[in-house]
Amino acid sequence: MSSSRKSRRETSQQLTTAQGIFQAICAKKSFLCVGLDPDPDRIPTSFGGGVLGMERFCKAMVTATLPHAVAYKPNLAFFEQYGAEGWAALERVVEAIPSDVLVIADAKRGDIGNTATRYARAMFEGLGADAATVAPYMGRDSVEPFTAFDNRWTVLLALTSNQGANDYEFHGMPPLFHQVLETSQSYENADRLMYVVGATRPEQLGEARKKVPQAFLLVPGVGAQGGSVEEVARFGLNGQCGLLVNSSRGILYAAGPDASIDAAKQASASEAASLAGDMRRCLEAKGLV
Amino acid sequence: MSSSRKSRRETSQQLTTAQGIFQAICAKKSFLCVGLDPDPDRIPTSFGGGVLGMERFCKAMVTATLPHAVAYKPNLAFFEQYGAEGWAALERVVEAIPSDVLVIADAKRGDIGNTATRYARAMFEGLGADAATVAPYMGRDSVEPFTAFDNRWTVLLALTSNQGANDYEFHGMPPLFHQVLETSQSYENADRLMYVVGATRPEQLGEARKKVPQAFLLVPGVGAQGGSVEEVARFGLNGQCGLLVNSSRGILYAAGPDASIDAAKQASASEAASLAGDMRRCLEAKGLV
Repeated sequence: MSSSRKSRRETSQQLTTAQGIFQAICAKKSFLCVGLDPDPDRIPTSFGGGVLGMERFCKAMVTATLPHAVAYKPNLAFFEQYGAEGWAALERVVEAIPSDVLVIADAKRGDIGNTATRYARAMFEGLGADAATVAPYMGRDSVEPFTAFDNRWTVLLALTSNQGANDYEFHGMPPLFHQVLETSQSYENADRLMYVVGATRPEQLGEARKKVPQAFLLVPGVGAQGGSVEEVARFGLNGQCGLLVNSSRGILYAAGPDASIDAAKQASASEAASLAGDMRRCLEAKGLV
Repeated sequence: MSSSRKSRRETSQQLTTAQGIFQAICAKKSFLCVGLDPDPDRIPTSFGGGVLGMERFCKAMVTATLPHAVAYKPNLAFFEQYGAEGWAALERVVEAIPSDVLVIADAKRGDIGNTATRYARAMFEGLGADAATVAPYMGRDSVEPFTAFDNRWTVLLALTSNQGANDYEFHGMPPLFHQVLETSQSYENADRLMYVVGATRPEQLGEARKKVPQAFLLVPGVGAQGGSVEEVARFGLNGQCGLLVNSSRGILYAAGPDASIDAAKQASASEAASLAGDMRRCLEAKGLV
């Protein structure tokens, strides 16, 4: 399915292939994804409150970190909490993200058939996102409506970085997340899949890499949650990098709640630059840049 | 957590307990949940197109089926496909649903911690829904932020009615959906949990009932998908009914695409009445009404 509805955001043809994403990574010598989790309890008060403060904050964070980021991952929960107004702000934030970086709508949707197609359209056409996160629980017919969009990426949850991952993601033998990686590779348009694999379990990240050698892995859990870029790179890099490492809170709230707008932007830029520096060293060590 | 933000919709204290839901079921002699899946390709053209046609259609369906329904389940995908405008329509549709029937936000959200709390607020406070569907994949810390709302219901996916359910929900021994039913009963405020268990697999519905004898089960898959009310009742009824059986398309699109508004309402009312009649007979046979 090619995306037909006109979305507000122009998207780039380059980022529709793994090779194109690798080129973008090489250009910035970074595989940093900045998670946009605008938590009203943590946004510096200088940005103002409510929906407009949130929007202003997100746009400032994009501007500040753009030299170091190849992807942005807005988390829809923080926008939905404001209902229709929040959605409108999300649309404006996404529209403000340049077309030469990926936008990953972190929606973790999971529903079937026709319903899933509606969610996919909401993300890919309505928002103009390049990618969306999807929960695998309901299986094939909850995933293929997303992978049917031939210019977009479907980022399937495999192994998440939270404590609760122990409840079900390791269930059975092989563990469920292995099964998700394997089974989903038989889905239609499986080449449109990326996978979420947390940084907090580096050995399992290595297992995931073996199961899906070519796929890009979206890796949360670096920084605040304890994972390190070096370990992620050691277990996860492939010949086209194959990694997008996400940091949200560590970057967004680097300056603390009382910072001015300028100080907040500087602190976030500095944090993003630091992570990107770690990434550059890993890419160089592997001979990729 | 008690719900603090003022939502547009007044909710009923009665429906916050299983006993109260049972009373509502006894009053209507029905355990019918009407799924609001407003598919633009199937809404009769007499309602008009776009977001406003969708809103008009949903409100008409509520009015038409209200004598027979104890719950409505708006599926968020169909609203989200219209972005902010769609969310605003969803808010108005939910606001129009009387407080003496349950509103189940069919969102199938699944994220962790603080993020999950934002989703829960979007559903319970922003929309004023009595319940929300949640995907279990990420485990405890993706569910407890929902069950923390002490007046609301968290409807966890266990065994869904789609073909793809075979991919993961039966993975392992015991099968994953058993594990979900068991493990989630140890979560904080587990008495706020209901479960989705599909009608298309009646024996497994019986297994689920044994695992969670007291919990309400939200059962999709009757009608269009092939399940019957009688079979669901045979395997699923408990002493307080314990069932909410959902029908969406079979009710909504009973009249076909060319029907007038009045004809569409009549056909949907008739279809709802027929299902409610089946339910009444099951409740009577079990001596519950």
